[in-house]
Amino acid sequence: MIIVKIGGGGTINIAGIIEDLAGLDEPYVIVHGANALRDKLAQDLGQPKQVLTSVKGYTSVYSDEKLLDVMMMAYAGLRNKRIVELCQQHGINAVGLSGLDGKIVQGKRNKGIRVYQGKKLKIVRDFSGKPRTVNAALLQLLLDNGYVPVLTVPIIDEFNAAINTENDDVVRVLQQALEADTVINLIEAAGFLADQNDSASLIKNIPASELDAREQQVAGRMKRKMLAFRKLFEHGASKVIISDGRSTHPVKDALAGKGTVIE
Amino acid sequence: MIIVKIGGGGTINIAGIIEDLAGLDEPYVIVHGANALRDKLAQDLGQPKQVLTSVKGYTSVYSDEKLLDVMMMAYAGLRNKRIVELCQQHGINAVGLSGLDGKIVQGKRNKGIRVYQGKKLKIVRDFSGKPRTVNAALLQLLLDNGYVPVLTVPIIDEFNAAINTENDDVVRVLQQALEADTVINLIEAAGFLADQNDSASLIKNIPASELDAREQQVAGRMKRKMLAFRKLFEHGASKVIISDGRSTHPVKDALAGKGTVIE
Repeated sequence: MIIVKIGGGGTINIAGIIEDLAGLDEPYVIVHGANALRDKLAQDLGQPKQVLTSVKGYTSVYSDEKLLDVMMMAYAGLRNKRIVELCQQHGINAVGLSGLDGKIVQGKRNKGIRVYQGKKLKIVRDFSGKPRTVNAALLQLLLDNGYVPVLTVPIIDEFNAAINTENDDVVRVLQQALEADTVINLIEAAGFLADQNDSASLIKNIPASELDAREQQVAGRMKRKMLAFRKLFEHGASKVIISDGRSTHPVKDALAGKGTVIE
Repeated sequence: MIIVKIGGGGTINIAGIIEDLAGLDEPYVIVHGANALRDKLAQDLGQPKQVLTSVKGYTSVYSDEKLLDVMMMAYAGLRNKRIVELCQQHGINAVGLSGLDGKIVQGKRNKGIRVYQGKKLKIVRDFSGKPRTVNAALLQLLLDNGYVPVLTVPIIDEFNAAINTENDDVVRVLQQALEADTVINLIEAAGFLADQNDSASLIKNIPASELDAREQQVAGRMKRKMLAFRKLFEHGASKVIISDGRSTHPVKDALAGKGTVIE
């Protein structure tokens, strides 16, 4: 079982990814983002996103009800349905689902994010949280009947409300539920770069035991990603390939070992 | 089996509908629109919808690729996921799907719509069409496992492309596939009005045999609706209730015989 995570960046070659997947023999589940789409939509609707930086240095999007609306449109609507359409055109019988559908990804709402406003410490509460469990029975039901689940945010919280979360965290709970051996994470870079401004600084292999140290090297979204990967390895052996989602054949390249392999 | 069609008007009481459905014993499937949402979104994005009127007098939305994007956002994204969320909050384990997902509603793309531009007859081709078949196996799989399908447009055409269609036509193919005995159609009016500007002109009962005549009495969306109902009766006995989606308990009212009953 492979989990293919398609990043939400604007230059990801989705058509190439789906073309590659059509030739794959192993069963797989797709998880996708849509952050570039969401940001553009929020901008176009005159409600540009606000980013929170926690006191620990992790960034996240301030997810009020309006931002959730925009997410439902960008992630579960436009991006999800266009990916499903592409899959169908390649003979993949995809079923697109948010975490709300059949409560397929259930989480717990954040109690609040500790942020500094100027020098003042403040707790900001929004509709965001962490995924905890997966409706594996529904996933398995679809897989057993020949469907490929295409998952995205939002997910559902303990009060049955829609919440935002990181798709990398969704991948983590999915990996556990499905006991997937391989996670392919397709991003807008050649892989894990020691210096994110230097594409030649690609690290080809990272032992899982070094993820903690690597996490300290980076900032922003990659920092959060490394945290998610670290937790993934904490919950069972697995192989993670961070690879270039912009190439002509992103999945083939990833499976051929291009990018960064974490084991 | 009941099919509940929730109209896409801005004043439909969706919360009341879902509350009613939570108390229903019979199995059901939800089909919903989102035209008010779509129109507002299209307007906000600076691409207001264009309406085509065919030479026969039926109106439809000009569905180019951009309009399909907006539909995916409004119907399959925001409205679908907020309905699924409401369902989950009422203990209904809903799974939201567009017609693309698992090819659940397959159709045929229109060859072109004959319209007058001034006095000139022109054929306009867009991404619209008619639903033909339903993936009843997937619907039944979900129903048998305790899930309530929540369906909406777009659907998938014979080339596996997303196309727009009328949700009332989706209801028609679903009715056949599921052999549903009752269709509840919740709209922004008390039911079928002989004079659409006079709410006191409600027709309480319409024999199915009179649908053709009634179709000639009305214009716009209701004309198209009556055509869809007529075809529904052509393909198997059924009961259609057109009822007020704006009331406190729209489904209870409909099942109590309020509105217009077609038999």
